[in-house]
Amino acid sequence: MDNETEQENQGGKQAYNFQIQPQTVDFQYRVTMAAFVDILLTAAGYNADHNGFGIRKLNEINSSWVLLRLAVELDRFPLQYEDIIVETWIEEVGRAMTSRNFCIKDKDGKIMGYAASNWAMIDLDTRHAKDLYLLEGIREFTSGISAPIKKPIKLKSVDSEPFDVFKVKYSDIDINGHTSSMRYIEWVSDYFSLDDYRKKQVSRFEINYVNEMLFGDEVSIFANEYEPDDFRFEIRKNGTTSSRARIVFC
Amino acid sequence: MDNETEQENQGGKQAYNFQIQPQTVDFQYRVTMAAFVDILLTAAGYNADHNGFGIRKLNEINSSWVLLRLAVELDRFPLQYEDIIVETWIEEVGRAMTSRNFCIKDKDGKIMGYAASNWAMIDLDTRHAKDLYLLEGIREFTSGISAPIKKPIKLKSVDSEPFDVFKVKYSDIDINGHTSSMRYIEWVSDYFSLDDYRKKQVSRFEINYVNEMLFGDEVSIFANEYEPDDFRFEIRKNGTTSSRARIVFC
Repeated sequence: MDNETEQENQGGKQAYNFQIQPQTVDFQYRVTMAAFVDILLTAAGYNADHNGFGIRKLNEINSSWVLLRLAVELDRFPLQYEDIIVETWIEEVGRAMTSRNFCIKDKDGKIMGYAASNWAMIDLDTRHAKDLYLLEGIREFTSGISAPIKKPIKLKSVDSEPFDVFKVKYSDIDINGHTSSMRYIEWVSDYFSLDDYRKKQVSRFEINYVNEMLFGDEVSIFANEYEPDDFRFEIRKNGTTSSRARIVFC
Repeated sequence: MDNETEQENQGGKQAYNFQIQPQTVDFQYRVTMAAFVDILLTAAGYNADHNGFGIRKLNEINSSWVLLRLAVELDRFPLQYEDIIVETWIEEVGRAMTSRNFCIKDKDGKIMGYAASNWAMIDLDTRHAKDLYLLEGIREFTSGISAPIKKPIKLKSVDSEPFDVFKVKYSDIDINGHTSSMRYIEWVSDYFSLDDYRKKQVSRFEINYVNEMLFGDEVSIFANEYEPDDFRFEIRKNGTTSSRARIVFC
């Protein structure tokens, strides 16, 4: 790739504006990680649409996007009613997976943090991954532009006693009939007390989505302080891994 | 009151527009009752501000509004991305309580349902009710205009085995340090299965807020089918009544 092309190809980068709504903040008026990730996924959806590879387009070939991994690092959390800008772009497109990055800015353009994510395309019937190269033109969005944070890693299994056990309920289920991605984040965020959140701030959040959960599944959640202030989580449904997550405090 | 004044006094009635956001719908693309009530409370907040008696104004005298009772009746539930109009106005203003009604319309002005609510003003330190007549000019909003649904009733105690027991967690707590009003509604809505929601539609929802809940409180939830398709709920914290609710299916 020559310099000219490199400069032109920004991976379909666009910026989207959001305002932090009152329902999405915690007791300290800060957006919750669950609600913040929801904003990132909304921006990803807009951008995929804009680039011609949105959910509706994929639905035409009986496919959809699934989020595999996500890492978020924030210097500070946006506050209630704050206006933020989310820039997002494609970094790589492989056959099995594509990577999408995010840069989060305040309304004056000051960078608040970054996020990095990996996505696969699945068949809506088999729920298995499909070859991304079937999407004509998607490889043109390969920009090679990374975000200046560590990429989301494959998190290891967590062995401990579950700190919470319950069943998946009506309010956990989204329009796809699965537990919404936001709930997983709420469940692991709920491991900590208000005092923990008063004293420390989350500096990195990471999640791996492994298996979807359905209504009535028995959920058990495991936690382990892997290193000081580096917590690892595992969410199992009926005994199998559904998701793994990581919360690092600074 | 002569006819002229009666026609003029609409209880400070205003109409507000909302769009049903994707995060707020259930597996059938219908707004959840919890999210719908949140829209009503947002409209109530806008209207109180507009009439000069918003939360910020009450905060100046170390007071706030608390919702005591609410009843909602919908012919149909708004769907994802649907634009709706919420009209709201004051019906009565007593010393201990004021009543506010709502009319919900689709974008073409067709009525989808109504809601009726009762509110008290509390002192932010003692959390006790204060005389509403301390608010100069508020009685002028008395319109006497009711909504054509039964007013919210004082719900009776429910005795049964709890169907759910857990502790109040980080994600349940709002900026006031209490469990958010929305969570109570999610918790009772979760008594039913997806099949129940597929087969029947909620025709009336009712809630009484009795006592606030804090982080770490032990919650137990009781349910009873009072009459066929008329379910009554009680939410207790550490053994005392925190809230009662009612869900009627048609």
